[in-house]
Amino acid sequence: MLEELKKAVCEANMDLLRYGLVTFTWGNVSAIDRESGLFVIKPSGIAYDRLTPEDMVVVDLNGKKVEGNYNPSSDTATHVELYKAFPEIGGIVHTHSSYATSWAQAGRSIPCYGTTHADYIYGEVPCIRCLNAEEIADAYEENTGHLIVSEFLRMCKDPVSVPAVLCKNHGPFTWGKDAGEAVHNAVVLEEVAKMAYRTESINHHVQPAPQELMDKHYYRKHGANAYYGQDS
Amino acid sequence: MLEELKKAVCEANMDLLRYGLVTFTWGNVSAIDRESGLFVIKPSGIAYDRLTPEDMVVVDLNGKKVEGNYNPSSDTATHVELYKAFPEIGGIVHTHSSYATSWAQAGRSIPCYGTTHADYIYGEVPCIRCLNAEEIADAYEENTGHLIVSEFLRMCKDPVSVPAVLCKNHGPFTWGKDAGEAVHNAVVLEEVAKMAYRTESINHHVQPAPQELMDKHYYRKHGANAYYGQDS
Amino acid sequence: MLEELKKAVCEANMDLLRYGLVTFTWGNVSAIDRESGLFVIKPSGIAYDRLTPEDMVVVDLNGKKVEGNYNPSSDTATHVELYKAFPEIGGIVHTHSSYATSWAQAGRSIPCYGTTHADYIYGEVPCIRCLNAEEIADAYEENTGHLIVSEFLRMCKDPVSVPAVLCKNHGPFTWGKDAGEAVHNAVVLEEVAKMAYRTESINHHVQPAPQELMDKHYYRKHGANAYYGQDS
Amino acid sequence: MLEELKKAVCEANMDLLRYGLVTFTWGNVSAIDRESGLFVIKPSGIAYDRLTPEDMVVVDLNGKKVEGNYNPSSDTATHVELYKAFPEIGGIVHTHSSYATSWAQAGRSIPCYGTTHADYIYGEVPCIRCLNAEEIADAYEENTGHLIVSEFLRMCKDPVSVPAVLCKNHGPFTWGKDAGEAVHNAVVLEEVAKMAYRTESINHHVQPAPQELMDKHYYRKHGANAYYGQDS
Repeated sequence: MLEELKKAVCEANMDLLRYGLVTFTWGNVSAIDRESGLFVIKPSGIAYDRLTPEDMVVVDLNGKKVEGNYNPSSDTATHVELYKAFPEIGGIVHTHSSYATSWAQAGRSIPCYGTTHADYIYGEVPCIRCLNAEEIADAYEENTGHLIVSEFLRMCKDPVSVPAVLCKNHGPFTWGKDAGEAVHNAVVLEEVAKMAYRTESINHHVQPAPQELMDKHYYRKHGANAYYGQDS
Repeated sequence: MLEELKKAVCEANMDLLRYGLVTFTWGNVSAIDRESGLFVIKPSGIAYDRLTPEDMVVVDLNGKKVEGNYNPSSDTATHVELYKAFPEIGGIVHTHSSYATSWAQAGRSIPCYGTTHADYIYGEVPCIRCLNAEEIADAYEENTGHLIVSEFLRMCKDPVSVPAVLCKNHGPFTWGKDAGEAVHNAVVLEEVAKMAYRTESINHHVQPAPQELMDKHYYRKHGANAYYGQDS
Repeated sequence: MLEELKKAVCEANMDLLRYGLVTFTWGNVSAIDRESGLFVIKPSGIAYDRLTPEDMVVVDLNGKKVEGNYNPSSDTATHVELYKAFPEIGGIVHTHSSYATSWAQAGRSIPCYGTTHADYIYGEVPCIRCLNAEEIADAYEENTGHLIVSEFLRMCKDPVSVPAVLCKNHGPFTWGKDAGEAVHNAVVLEEVAKMAYRTESINHHVQPAPQELMDKHYYRKHGANAYYGQDS
Repeated sequence: MLEELKKAVCEANMDLLRYGLVTFTWGNVSAIDRESGLFVIKPSGIAYDRLTPEDMVVVDLNGKKVEGNYNPSSDTATHVELYKAFPEIGGIVHTHSSYATSWAQAGRSIPCYGTTHADYIYGEVPCIRCLNAEEIADAYEENTGHLIVSEFLRMCKDPVSVPAVLCKNHGPFTWGKDAGEAVHNAVVLEEVAKMAYRTESINHHVQPAPQELMDKHYYRKHGANAYYGQDS
């Protein structure tokens, strides 16, 4: 069942380790098969270096396990909400990567200070509020997903051009058209978070990059007029 | 004598090097056999990469060497006091890992800024005062252990839910149910110390995570209602 | 066509990865054959670890592709302008290396705080202004090159003694007599940027190194009276 | 001639690379044979990864090359002065290691904030002033050595208990009883510099460790009453 997707998700989970985004089991990747409405996700608490495709867990969009020997990631309910609300995305990553998590812990959105950021993420990476006591007590992981979705709606953010979010006091989620792109965006986010941290230390009064530069770089790589790479 | 425990302690000491927690010989791991009341500890000043199980030293709870070709770690008397006072623990780690030691040198407890911390450590990681001149002059290492124990008592900290301490101007000790868990907690502490350092730099007025989030994450992984991983 | 140069440029591009200066495809190296007026540059958006000399693209000084299976780097027009204006240089590097890019994002020139900097770069590494809306809208990459050149003229900087520039909100360019020296200078710039960042954190009121020390170190390694290394 | 010493010095130079203390050729190690009054030093500007013992240069205490195919390190005259003034030392290291150099560039001595520092270096690591224009113009490297020696005299520092110095706007020198110990102290200095940097960021009002703790840790490892390691 979904053998190819399991391989891709397993590989993407191991990429988290290769890119230095995870310590121990602090992260998970999933990817969805939109036709069947089923997604494949990392099992909970299993070390990356001994993951096999067969260990992956298949879950439906009600968050019910459909196949697998293990419990799915404890963050499964968050993935469900994102897949339901964002039909354009095919893969999701959650990590506690060091710099992105530091911004999340600081409760601040990451301003766009340069073209490295603008090449992949349109505008700031939003940091959304912490869940309140009630939201935490009942269906915590599901409510994390609800909050990401409702905050993106409220801020009129498009999840395709803003493929990343910081959850206050917690850490980042990133996504993409598939598991590979979601991991790619997790790496981008960590690099961008690292440079923004240093940028503010070098200049305490720094301002975000001009809007026209953000537009130029985002649209140099995305959309109908893109001319970066070999596809144009 | 205690051959299995020697292997585990030797391996755990070498893990300090693998996880990047030690330079030269700056750290040590021990683990206790509660039945016999004997514990196994790294020899003093021997490089990690040439440690063998046979090099490990067996010590009793009076701090007397029972078996071994080498002197035990110079911090042995601290380990003795922790094993005597904290019957729930089975392994202890001391390192000079860079970020945790920087907090210890700064004389500050590490606030809980997010779920990475809350998943493993309940509330702040306390930094206890430096020993005074008298405590240093006589039985320095033993007094370090006494102070950790008396400070945990005074602060009503449970060593099971707070498996780490910072000794001012010195460095961290962590512990766990065995040598492996103590090393795991040493890695967690270093990551948490690193992110808290950056968090404060990103937001000079940051506050600790809300109590309900700390509770949620700690109890998601620990105790009767835990549901993280494959054991629940 | 230019087979030796293609090998050298391919190797220099892979060196960016080896020296930790690039993530994904965030950088490019070129080198020019002054006799023919053609230069060789990395193809756009191709991963470093699978580059071969045959993948390199040959371009003329009008920015026209002369040979190659791929599109040249999207920054090709910037390289063209630098080669045209700076006849002494034979190789150019662009990266988003973390510390240098953080200075660029902060919009600050890197002061010369010590001999590590002075050994290779005479005086500060200038950070030039961001392009304005008009310059961005039309021929962005070409205008980036124009601006570097006109700013060097305005500041009376010699591109041989100042082989590096920061483009505000973007990142660094470095150059040298060939691809290898340009990469060498990119590594120097990143180290210098890293140490300047830390230097200012350690002393908020730090001043640049004295002029006579800058002179001494630069001329110890460069020019007629150099005595560093084996050539003197 | 001095074959064993050449091997040790060659190995010690390559250790600088292994410990991450050098980029390119930015460092050198020497060691002296006190009987003959000759010392062995790295050739100038040669990459670490292709050094062989035969490449080492033999120099006398007048700074004259006695044997070798290459020019000795451009810092040779500094080594000469240190060997002449500090008869207890047998090996010297100069690097531009990142954190130690950042303190040197900041023009600040490194306070002793904890036991990691106190275990190896008694009291602060002094940062001495930059050479003046006259000292730079004539016999720069020799004057660097003179200044280290005269500043240690003026401050009543013992080079055995303080085996490290920072030269303002330049970088560190360390030394020891032989090349290996000098490299060991260079590693210690870099770790101590890194932690002191972070310590001050975590607590802007931090004070040095208490004198009695510095004494305890230094004398736990050094002198007649030492009890660390296997020698006591």
